[in-house]
Amino acid sequence: MAGSVYGTLFKVSTFGESHGAAVGAVVDGCPAGLMLEREYIQAFLDRRRPGQSRFTTARKEADRVEILSGVFEGKTLGTPIALIIQNEDQRSSDYSELKDIYRPGHADFCFDEKYGFRDYRGGGRSSGRETAGRVAAGAVAMKILSGLGIGINAFARSVGPFTVPQEITDTEEARRNPLGIPDPHIYAEAAKYIEELKEAGDSAGGIIECRIEGLPVGLGETVFDKMDAELSKAIMSIGAVKGFEIGDGFRAAVSKGSENNDPFTMEKGKTVKKSNHSGGTLGGMSDGDTIVFRAAVKPTPSISLPQKTVTSKGEEREIVIKGRHDPLIVPRAIVVVEAMAAITVADMLLRNMSSGYEDVKEHYSRNKGKE
Amino acid sequence: MAGSVYGTLFKVSTFGESHGAAVGAVVDGCPAGLMLEREYIQAFLDRRRPGQSRFTTARKEADRVEILSGVFEGKTLGTPIALIIQNEDQRSSDYSELKDIYRPGHADFCFDEKYGFRDYRGGGRSSGRETAGRVAAGAVAMKILSGLGIGINAFARSVGPFTVPQEITDTEEARRNPLGIPDPHIYAEAAKYIEELKEAGDSAGGIIECRIEGLPVGLGETVFDKMDAELSKAIMSIGAVKGFEIGDGFRAAVSKGSENNDPFTMEKGKTVKKSNHSGGTLGGMSDGDTIVFRAAVKPTPSISLPQKTVTSKGEEREIVIKGRHDPLIVPRAIVVVEAMAAITVADMLLRNMSSGYEDVKEHYSRNKGKE
Amino acid sequence: MAGSVYGTLFKVSTFGESHGAAVGAVVDGCPAGLMLEREYIQAFLDRRRPGQSRFTTARKEADRVEILSGVFEGKTLGTPIALIIQNEDQRSSDYSELKDIYRPGHADFCFDEKYGFRDYRGGGRSSGRETAGRVAAGAVAMKILSGLGIGINAFARSVGPFTVPQEITDTEEARRNPLGIPDPHIYAEAAKYIEELKEAGDSAGGIIECRIEGLPVGLGETVFDKMDAELSKAIMSIGAVKGFEIGDGFRAAVSKGSENNDPFTMEKGKTVKKSNHSGGTLGGMSDGDTIVFRAAVKPTPSISLPQKTVTSKGEEREIVIKGRHDPLIVPRAIVVVEAMAAITVADMLLRNMSSGYEDVKEHYSRNKGKE
Amino acid sequence: MAGSVYGTLFKVSTFGESHGAAVGAVVDGCPAGLMLEREYIQAFLDRRRPGQSRFTTARKEADRVEILSGVFEGKTLGTPIALIIQNEDQRSSDYSELKDIYRPGHADFCFDEKYGFRDYRGGGRSSGRETAGRVAAGAVAMKILSGLGIGINAFARSVGPFTVPQEITDTEEARRNPLGIPDPHIYAEAAKYIEELKEAGDSAGGIIECRIEGLPVGLGETVFDKMDAELSKAIMSIGAVKGFEIGDGFRAAVSKGSENNDPFTMEKGKTVKKSNHSGGTLGGMSDGDTIVFRAAVKPTPSISLPQKTVTSKGEEREIVIKGRHDPLIVPRAIVVVEAMAAITVADMLLRNMSSGYEDVKEHYSRNKGKE
Repeated sequence: MAGSVYGTLFKVSTFGESHGAAVGAVVDGCPAGLMLEREYIQAFLDRRRPGQSRFTTARKEADRVEILSGVFEGKTLGTPIALIIQNEDQRSSDYSELKDIYRPGHADFCFDEKYGFRDYRGGGRSSGRETAGRVAAGAVAMKILSGLGIGINAFARSVGPFTVPQEITDTEEARRNPLGIPDPHIYAEAAKYIEELKEAGDSAGGIIECRIEGLPVGLGETVFDKMDAELSKAIMSIGAVKGFEIGDGFRAAVSKGSENNDPFTMEKGKTVKKSNHSGGTLGGMSDGDTIVFRAAVKPTPSISLPQKTVTSKGEEREIVIKGRHDPLIVPRAIVVVEAMAAITVADMLLRNMSSGYEDVKEHYSRNKGKE
Repeated sequence: MAGSVYGTLFKVSTFGESHGAAVGAVVDGCPAGLMLEREYIQAFLDRRRPGQSRFTTARKEADRVEILSGVFEGKTLGTPIALIIQNEDQRSSDYSELKDIYRPGHADFCFDEKYGFRDYRGGGRSSGRETAGRVAAGAVAMKILSGLGIGINAFARSVGPFTVPQEITDTEEARRNPLGIPDPHIYAEAAKYIEELKEAGDSAGGIIECRIEGLPVGLGETVFDKMDAELSKAIMSIGAVKGFEIGDGFRAAVSKGSENNDPFTMEKGKTVKKSNHSGGTLGGMSDGDTIVFRAAVKPTPSISLPQKTVTSKGEEREIVIKGRHDPLIVPRAIVVVEAMAAITVADMLLRNMSSGYEDVKEHYSRNKGKE
Repeated sequence: MAGSVYGTLFKVSTFGESHGAAVGAVVDGCPAGLMLEREYIQAFLDRRRPGQSRFTTARKEADRVEILSGVFEGKTLGTPIALIIQNEDQRSSDYSELKDIYRPGHADFCFDEKYGFRDYRGGGRSSGRETAGRVAAGAVAMKILSGLGIGINAFARSVGPFTVPQEITDTEEARRNPLGIPDPHIYAEAAKYIEELKEAGDSAGGIIECRIEGLPVGLGETVFDKMDAELSKAIMSIGAVKGFEIGDGFRAAVSKGSENNDPFTMEKGKTVKKSNHSGGTLGGMSDGDTIVFRAAVKPTPSISLPQKTVTSKGEEREIVIKGRHDPLIVPRAIVVVEAMAAITVADMLLRNMSSGYEDVKEHYSRNKGKE
Repeated sequence: MAGSVYGTLFKVSTFGESHGAAVGAVVDGCPAGLMLEREYIQAFLDRRRPGQSRFTTARKEADRVEILSGVFEGKTLGTPIALIIQNEDQRSSDYSELKDIYRPGHADFCFDEKYGFRDYRGGGRSSGRETAGRVAAGAVAMKILSGLGIGINAFARSVGPFTVPQEITDTEEARRNPLGIPDPHIYAEAAKYIEELKEAGDSAGGIIECRIEGLPVGLGETVFDKMDAELSKAIMSIGAVKGFEIGDGFRAAVSKGSENNDPFTMEKGKTVKKSNHSGGTLGGMSDGDTIVFRAAVKPTPSISLPQKTVTSKGEEREIVIKGRHDPLIVPRAIVVVEAMAAITVADMLLRNMSSGYEDVKEHYSRNKGKE
């Protein structure tokens, strides 16, 4: 089973089980000469770290990232950047009783069918902890993009039944509260809702919205490797995500062509769209507008209410999951969404560099000139 | 600009512009010894052929597929299968007036920005005609799967505002009407709606649902290459698709863990889920249940109502698109969705073959035994 | 069995059996805006066409290439370029008697073991005819390179026991004679040798040398994807090639460090090597010098002398291969070597464009500036 | 600059600079259920460890490998296996004086041209130390293969001018002496030669031969991804390797078809070749015979004799390289050759599993049966 390597030129290989020695990532293909500090990456990891609010698991992990290679005197070498995060809190005793039973909503049963055994300590490779490697690699991608003026920001568009109106996109407000909601009033309501669910041993889902600003026109390839298609794979590969839409998304399905098409107009000498139903891509390429996509996140499957299930021996049982779990995956998944978006955009950006023969010629002459 | 090659082991390379000499696909990695006839592939292409009902463009294309390689005495050789469809109706005169103007909702502007020029005859590579190559390759994938008892069927879950209730999934009924709707009453309403829109020079969108049956448990890789993530990329790479969801999808976001988790139970000695909120995958792997996903299709961007736009020289203009266009992309996209799903599942199936060491040993001994 | 797709960004997918309908290639990832004419590609194919001298098979093939897609108004679109060559001379009757017998030095036996059957008409996919697709794709790569001033030229360094002294590299002379030997006297001797072998029903091998000029310093990646490693795979993937060496190659193994190291010096303000034992690469990267590599080509396995072999039923037999075969593969393989080198260098060139962050920033600002 | 990821299904991503914190590898795609112990991997690393004889550098490195992920209760999980080796002896002071000067035969100049700077501590990423990651990953591949009865053994076929006759292939003898030569008398001569060179501040090259036994017929794909082509890339990607040949290799070029073709015969009811000029592959596929290939290794470029070179400022200089260097790369490269061969064969083996439709059906039914 391969499947832990992602990207064409900016290539990310993640590793690690939740209760193994470490998790991490190796980034191959990061351009050389980028200033990159450990602290920059750490800041991203800190945003997904557990134990930061009453809405996240109490599991304690410092999640300290170390750069093992690829950076010399503060600059990337153009060689693989190995990033490692030691697992500190490996209380696997919490899990031994899960060895022979299948948690609903989890991959336990699939692993056993596929291989005849599994790492039963937490989700193993399917744990949310796997995303630490993505976030570390995503921080490297973000460093590339931010140096160009490209910004990627995600927040909670909805939590359970509480939805923030479309026109509100205040990322700074979203960063101020532990649920990542860009509106203080809706935050208050949602927080109450989540606390009640948590109390009840239940969990909630939500929708994460992500906005990418500053892209040039034309990133993305026209057929299979469309910008939207690549983003979709990246986001749907995050554990609990069950849906992806760009621009008007599912609302476009009930719209008319005359409403859904974005008219072009001129603004300060540039061609721009008057509206953004497309969500920033046309024909799979960035269209110069903000890319706006949303991810549907399912409720945390680990709940402490009793559930019907079976054992690996085929006995029907009731299961009550103990341990420390997030009542809602959304808050910690926000930075994971940003990371996966950054990795995808960085890869598409590098891939785009060789798309025109004029660019090839220009790059060649500059290189020959240097000698 | 690469991006027209798809898949890891079952690898599809498509080619062709709408008004060039031909479109087609090369499939590398199809297992040897599969019975494959031209007519089998043709039947799939016939389902996406234009000019078959009042809801599709009148453009006339026989869309006759030819197998150029990879098949000998009716069986696949294990070598690349080249599939070609000549373009017959190349009335590019319809398009010459579009040379310098950007159609809203189309990729024209992005192509010009990316390259400084474009193939202005129809959508060029971004035309819906590009999907003929996908369908031809998808037919090969479907032949692999159907020999195993795996079935893939898609239909229109909604057309414009008309939605078929969730419990109706009658694919045969859907094949009986030109909109692909699995309910005759809703079909009648939707048909009337589409005719009116067409009359008005406007267009509609809709939602395609696809169901995959007969999968073993465990197809899909646990991190980036999850079954759902791969399907998502495959489907989002189809021209007009703006959203993808699996199982409860966006509805899962407002659900609770206690509702969304599918309890396990025993049925005829097998572990099965009591419900299918997951849509047939857990942890990125097929869970033995039917895979159910939906794709949001935007309204056809080519409408004959006047629209505001600009020229490549930066002049604001009104555009009225002539020519023959589908008032709704959904009907012809149904088989494209099936094709992309088949390609994806075939690839994941082949990739899965080497996932367990027991399987590796077994395969090795059988091969050594043959000698 | 995949394995007919090559390259990371400049991606070539070839197809076709020797006695099927057609052979060809699809090139995905060619930069847009390159002037490309059918005749340019045809000229390369003409160099490998059979029936041109007494040293090649009498099989008649016009080998006329057609461009099916990817080129519009004489320029590449940035979309896949499909290239097709119809097979005209499909006299498969010559081969029916080979259906159940294994030709020594051919892949017949391996195919049967691998799949239980094979395309017994000629070599099928393993025929030398397969290289037509490589040459067509290689011509596209060469068009990219020649526009930059990069030249790739191959010739016969040896034919059977006749070797051209190292200092002779006159490609023009080599093009003048049908064996591709850059020295008229050695050509005369070799020609006589080949004629005698042909008369005797036997065949010869030889060594092809290829020289790549005009590369910038730094093409190639430092670990697995070294320029020399990629070239090696490309060249060793050509049917009859049994060895590859770069620079001093196998002679380096008997050399000393003090002899083998190329000292650096300054010339017209540039750092250059005083000698070229390295063959133009250091640490897997082009070093600014001419890349010089050699390929060992085995004698044509199809000979008309009687040979011992077995049938697919396990009976020992003597086989006498009829039909029209080259007594020497070298002359027609020269352009195949150039083609594979061009494809490899083009791919490494495009991959190199994103290797420095300064280049990324520069490309980004130019692209943003265009809007 | 990507290029540190290798393989299609058995995918290896290596990382690490010689004087950074660590080197290592992540293996994605190792089948689940393989017994794998740290000590097994360590034994391979011990064979390439420096400081073991008077023929290797005195640099002290324990080269202790740690498994960070992918193994649980002694068995592979089917998830990425991260392998890490801390760098202990980071005496980079030896190198600071090399910051601005280009060592002949090294990549220093190419790095500077490519990026404008480099990691001047030793070879950085281009150091021989990079191969530790390959060896660790290769050990995992070897574990897969040895469980099937496939054996891979390499040794020194020649050292400087001393060549072991073709018929001697005694790997055990080769393991007994520090030069890896399978003949004690030739070892004695070669050892004397190397000691004299070392004394003189010079270095030598040699030829490594590798033999792969126990392969089934049919491994390898017929066009670009031939077994020989893949092996060639793998071996040529090792730092000092300048040539690769399989079977008779360059000798085949002076042979005749009647000599070079291996006749088939029957032996114990099996089809076998009477000779092995082919070196174990036909048409790019394993032919059931031992695969025999050779790699030409250049003399160590780091010598202590004075050499002419230039500085990064363009001044001509004489350089005398200090530090601790192997007078011969061959002994420590033997296990690297085995490792790269193992990785390649393991990948081709997994890729081959899906090559026949009968195998696909059989695998599917077994999987469905398990449920």
